[in-house]
Amino acid sequence: MNRFGQKLTFTTFGESHGRAIGCVVDGLPAGLLIDEAFIQSELDRRKPGQNKYATARKEGDKVEILSGVFEGVSTGTPIAMVIFNENQKSNDYENVKNLFRPGHADFTYFHKYGVRDYRGGGRSSARETAARVAAGALAKLLLNALHVKVQSGICSIGGIEAKAYDFERVASSEIYALDASVETAQQDAILEAKNSHDSIGGVALVQIIGAPIGLGEPLYYKLDAILAEAMMGINGVKGVEIGEGLHASSLRGSQNNDAITQNGFKSNHSGGILGGISNGDVITCKVYFKPTPSIFIEQETIDTKGNALTCALKGRHDPCIAVRGSVVAESMAALVIADMMLLNLGSRMEHLHAIYP
Amino acid sequence: MNRFGQKLTFTTFGESHGRAIGCVVDGLPAGLLIDEAFIQSELDRRKPGQNKYATARKEGDKVEILSGVFEGVSTGTPIAMVIFNENQKSNDYENVKNLFRPGHADFTYFHKYGVRDYRGGGRSSARETAARVAAGALAKLLLNALHVKVQSGICSIGGIEAKAYDFERVASSEIYALDASVETAQQDAILEAKNSHDSIGGVALVQIIGAPIGLGEPLYYKLDAILAEAMMGINGVKGVEIGEGLHASSLRGSQNNDAITQNGFKSNHSGGILGGISNGDVITCKVYFKPTPSIFIEQETIDTKGNALTCALKGRHDPCIAVRGSVVAESMAALVIADMMLLNLGSRMEHLHAIYP
Amino acid sequence: MNRFGQKLTFTTFGESHGRAIGCVVDGLPAGLLIDEAFIQSELDRRKPGQNKYATARKEGDKVEILSGVFEGVSTGTPIAMVIFNENQKSNDYENVKNLFRPGHADFTYFHKYGVRDYRGGGRSSARETAARVAAGALAKLLLNALHVKVQSGICSIGGIEAKAYDFERVASSEIYALDASVETAQQDAILEAKNSHDSIGGVALVQIIGAPIGLGEPLYYKLDAILAEAMMGINGVKGVEIGEGLHASSLRGSQNNDAITQNGFKSNHSGGILGGISNGDVITCKVYFKPTPSIFIEQETIDTKGNALTCALKGRHDPCIAVRGSVVAESMAALVIADMMLLNLGSRMEHLHAIYP
Amino acid sequence: MNRFGQKLTFTTFGESHGRAIGCVVDGLPAGLLIDEAFIQSELDRRKPGQNKYATARKEGDKVEILSGVFEGVSTGTPIAMVIFNENQKSNDYENVKNLFRPGHADFTYFHKYGVRDYRGGGRSSARETAARVAAGALAKLLLNALHVKVQSGICSIGGIEAKAYDFERVASSEIYALDASVETAQQDAILEAKNSHDSIGGVALVQIIGAPIGLGEPLYYKLDAILAEAMMGINGVKGVEIGEGLHASSLRGSQNNDAITQNGFKSNHSGGILGGISNGDVITCKVYFKPTPSIFIEQETIDTKGNALTCALKGRHDPCIAVRGSVVAESMAALVIADMMLLNLGSRMEHLHAIYP
Repeated sequence: MNRFGQKLTFTTFGESHGRAIGCVVDGLPAGLLIDEAFIQSELDRRKPGQNKYATARKEGDKVEILSGVFEGVSTGTPIAMVIFNENQKSNDYENVKNLFRPGHADFTYFHKYGVRDYRGGGRSSARETAARVAAGALAKLLLNALHVKVQSGICSIGGIEAKAYDFERVASSEIYALDASVETAQQDAILEAKNSHDSIGGVALVQIIGAPIGLGEPLYYKLDAILAEAMMGINGVKGVEIGEGLHASSLRGSQNNDAITQNGFKSNHSGGILGGISNGDVITCKVYFKPTPSIFIEQETIDTKGNALTCALKGRHDPCIAVRGSVVAESMAALVIADMMLLNLGSRMEHLHAIYP
Repeated sequence: MNRFGQKLTFTTFGESHGRAIGCVVDGLPAGLLIDEAFIQSELDRRKPGQNKYATARKEGDKVEILSGVFEGVSTGTPIAMVIFNENQKSNDYENVKNLFRPGHADFTYFHKYGVRDYRGGGRSSARETAARVAAGALAKLLLNALHVKVQSGICSIGGIEAKAYDFERVASSEIYALDASVETAQQDAILEAKNSHDSIGGVALVQIIGAPIGLGEPLYYKLDAILAEAMMGINGVKGVEIGEGLHASSLRGSQNNDAITQNGFKSNHSGGILGGISNGDVITCKVYFKPTPSIFIEQETIDTKGNALTCALKGRHDPCIAVRGSVVAESMAALVIADMMLLNLGSRMEHLHAIYP
Repeated sequence: MNRFGQKLTFTTFGESHGRAIGCVVDGLPAGLLIDEAFIQSELDRRKPGQNKYATARKEGDKVEILSGVFEGVSTGTPIAMVIFNENQKSNDYENVKNLFRPGHADFTYFHKYGVRDYRGGGRSSARETAARVAAGALAKLLLNALHVKVQSGICSIGGIEAKAYDFERVASSEIYALDASVETAQQDAILEAKNSHDSIGGVALVQIIGAPIGLGEPLYYKLDAILAEAMMGINGVKGVEIGEGLHASSLRGSQNNDAITQNGFKSNHSGGILGGISNGDVITCKVYFKPTPSIFIEQETIDTKGNALTCALKGRHDPCIAVRGSVVAESMAALVIADMMLLNLGSRMEHLHAIYP
Repeated sequence: MNRFGQKLTFTTFGESHGRAIGCVVDGLPAGLLIDEAFIQSELDRRKPGQNKYATARKEGDKVEILSGVFEGVSTGTPIAMVIFNENQKSNDYENVKNLFRPGHADFTYFHKYGVRDYRGGGRSSARETAARVAAGALAKLLLNALHVKVQSGICSIGGIEAKAYDFERVASSEIYALDASVETAQQDAILEAKNSHDSIGGVALVQIIGAPIGLGEPLYYKLDAILAEAMMGINGVKGVEIGEGLHASSLRGSQNNDAITQNGFKSNHSGGILGGISNGDVITCKVYFKPTPSIFIEQETIDTKGNALTCALKGRHDPCIAVRGSVVAESMAALVIADMMLLNLGSRMEHLHAIYP
């Protein structure tokens, strides 16, 4: 089940060290200007090998559009995008061919399917998220045309938390940090983990600004539920919060309710969502990433035949997946919001009368 | 979009003060013994009016099966279940007819649909969750037959956290508390909130024991992603964690990875899920509920015409929705796991050879 | 899989001799006036026991709305409708309990599910189609509001074909005949079959008038493909034609193509659909019903244990299912068109700009 | 909505004269041997330019697998296949750029989407069916492993009907004729139409042999309904019959019912499907194709600005789309049956006990 979304959908394919990865995006309205340079720039934000806080592995991540765009405009037909894999050193993986790397999906894929593409994690590799970013770029083009903005950044690394959020500075930060005052400490935490042959967890914050009131299809396609699904499905994510999140469970109703005034809500504990439907306020979502499971410290494990052994992984890995993961989270949020904007069409008779006069 | 699940699906209908609520469960295998008393007993765990920690409102919540069961056994056809509403004092709601209760879905439903059933929250009322519990009871009957157990309890109320989890004691606790040592403090927190005309948040823990390795359909129907969707979609939930959850974002890989031995995993930071697929260990999920939005303290709001006003709600409401919400979370977990067990059929050729010899 | 449709969906439940049959209709826009008398009148068109050309079995088919309508208007939430079964003489079916009626689904249900509700065909009974008509009535209310008309009638019985189609006369014909000049012959064919303890086949014609250009979601939700699915899924249907239908396979392109003029198409061989999308012309679909499989003549069959035997069925059955089946076909067509009108929203950027200014 | 199927799904992309066409097949069980030469051989059966009865346009139709296969075996992950377009003479289409070809989807695509890729029909071109054949080849590999056979052939051209069906001879017939005794007449009919700058319709017969009893998911994913959808969705199809088909509407029940014996059904009017579920007999389906709409005779039409004009098309087109269409119909049938075999898993408790002991 490699498809996400209901009306705006995308289907991804591809393995880390296969021939290519890619996606087919279906349901984008016809007549949208498709800015290919923008799509590539989004992929560039996610691509590896850009600085010392990320893996040294380089991938050009050049995206090619195979269909669905004609004379620079979407035609309403599916848009297939493909990224051919350049860096297919699969012999790097000979040594892990028969063992299960702790914290990885090797064990579960092998037992579910009885067969496993062991090269770089195969399908379970975070490499696949490049396809999500390509799809997300299309969603952002649609949202831009509708004056909705999606933004993200890193709010915490290894427990070192941002005290303020400045989305303007994210683009110029090597770790997409939201708070300049803790950025150095966060960077140091990543480097210390890396230098110890270890890795470290982190947290991304995603915001959607300008979403209209009414997005979300209760009761089983609520906006918050689908955002949670989208985020928890990203590699390495172990927790998701909307608005006040976990903290809400410690509060009283009088503290947590957002009073309503003629100028809007007085606070935003709800994170912009009430009853699973957007309320017009800023939608906020925090996404908690575990530390990269690939570490170079020796670990206990077993092989596919059940023999006990220890392994010390080799290769090049991000010491903190949250950093590049934040771009993926932002992309997934854009896809959810764009889908919800399409799904909401037809929620009331006025829509039909407007389109079918 | 009032349907959940892929292979085992349920569709719910009904409003808080309408004629009835109910569900249609589709995709249950034929030949399962349907224990109606068990279904009712599950509904009884969720039903209101049972003690001073819940709303005083009473609903019999008597479930009737309309189809799909013949001579005590499922036939493979859809099972419709209906609960007629008894307690339809909709005049209680005259006073909130035209205003938006803070923290509720009144505002968003009204703006999305242009029309709103204001009686007790209409469709957005937690009353609908009775239908989820009825559906969940069928899922549990299926899981029981396959030796999979789903359990839940309250681990935190208003920030007072359980230090140990004893699922055996939940059934006999009025607040479904997992830890006897903090139960009184948790109960007091609820009563204090209630006596202050306020409400309080809480946290439910859900565990699945005995699930086979291999559940979850990557990459866009991962087990953790769908659990997150299911939980975040429950009324009042603002955060979801799998396994180590938020805490994982503060850890290093060497701390968070679960070493693998010939006897299984040495720890369970993953919460029983790797790469979106169950690994055979206990699946754990924490669900964070906000405080009940219905409080009796005066609050600022506006009416449907945009006039500012203050409201002090009346009626009978749970001071802490997490308590009865834990039963709903458990039901949703059962539905997710049962669906995943059906979806996993056919993941490898051996399955087909076993069924079509 | 008891659900039909994508955006406007309906899920049906219930067995012929169970407690009730019904449906849950989801996705209807909010703000539609719900005329309950109209829904009942549609059910009355399909209900049995009205004249000598149909079964003598009587069912009141009184529909009750359980949810989704408030103050006479749809609210955007699911509309559940239920019809309680009155005529549950299940002892009529003791004699067929263990045998497979030729031409019926007894054999296949038993082998697929291993268990079977033998009372009146259980789930496979055409009784379920009452739920489709109830759902279809809601679709027609929506279509009426959008100036789209769906109509049907009988064009052939036992090979006796209408030479002209007059939809105005259908309502006053006991066999819903489209052509007065062959009506008596068609009626006689039904009575002759009935008097011979046999049954006879027939053909319904369905037309949709006023559908806008652009309905249909290529390539795998084409309007003609989904109409074909909808029609072939009705009990007893063995063939479906769009427009020129089978005859097109004998023609040349120069005969079959519809020339286009400034005033529209010069002919309508296409049946109003090109490339799976409506072209603004009248949509036409012919639906071929087999003769009722329940006949009172002795037939060869086997029982559930594999013993050979002969059976002569008892009970009350329609001698020609096409007649009442035409109402079902019309209802299904309405559901398809209504769904397509909703699905088409968002096919181009203009729609989004109109709804989200 | 460019996806077909429920459990085994495929999503296609690509335009006639775009960069590539292709598909993503999802849900194939892991562990299936993937014979790439077989996939190519299936594409070769459909490819143009092979003899005088088909278009002279040549396409290599070389398929490349991008993902989902490792060491010759399916891994349970999506299999993406791509065919790069070689023959992109889009300047051939300058002359039709602004007009609507009669019988084509030009008119409806333009009005639905407001924008149109006019090169060779763009997305609505039958070229896309190559992707269906590639997907169908995977389905056939699965069916072969399960001893189910799908076969097809031409039974009628321009009204000249086969009197007997010999599937063995189809592979060696240039027009895939099922009956040697009418083959020459059928060929002549095609050539006569071609020489008159015209085209001609035809009929394909598809059979499935060896399908187990129990395929089909009533009531809204019946085997016959989904076959009808699959067939009617193929370019140029205007009618579909199952088993006795249209003729059943002229019969009496005593003629049409298939008596059941200890050795199976005595006849097969049902076409192997009862109540939407396979009964173990041969499944038969007839598919009626209209004549190719692209003809070289002058036709009346309008342009995108509404001006009346006449057009005489140029280029290279099949005089009879039914011939190569029969391969597409066979592929779609294979995809439907394979999907149904996967969907049927879990229809009864025995299946679950077999897989989860």
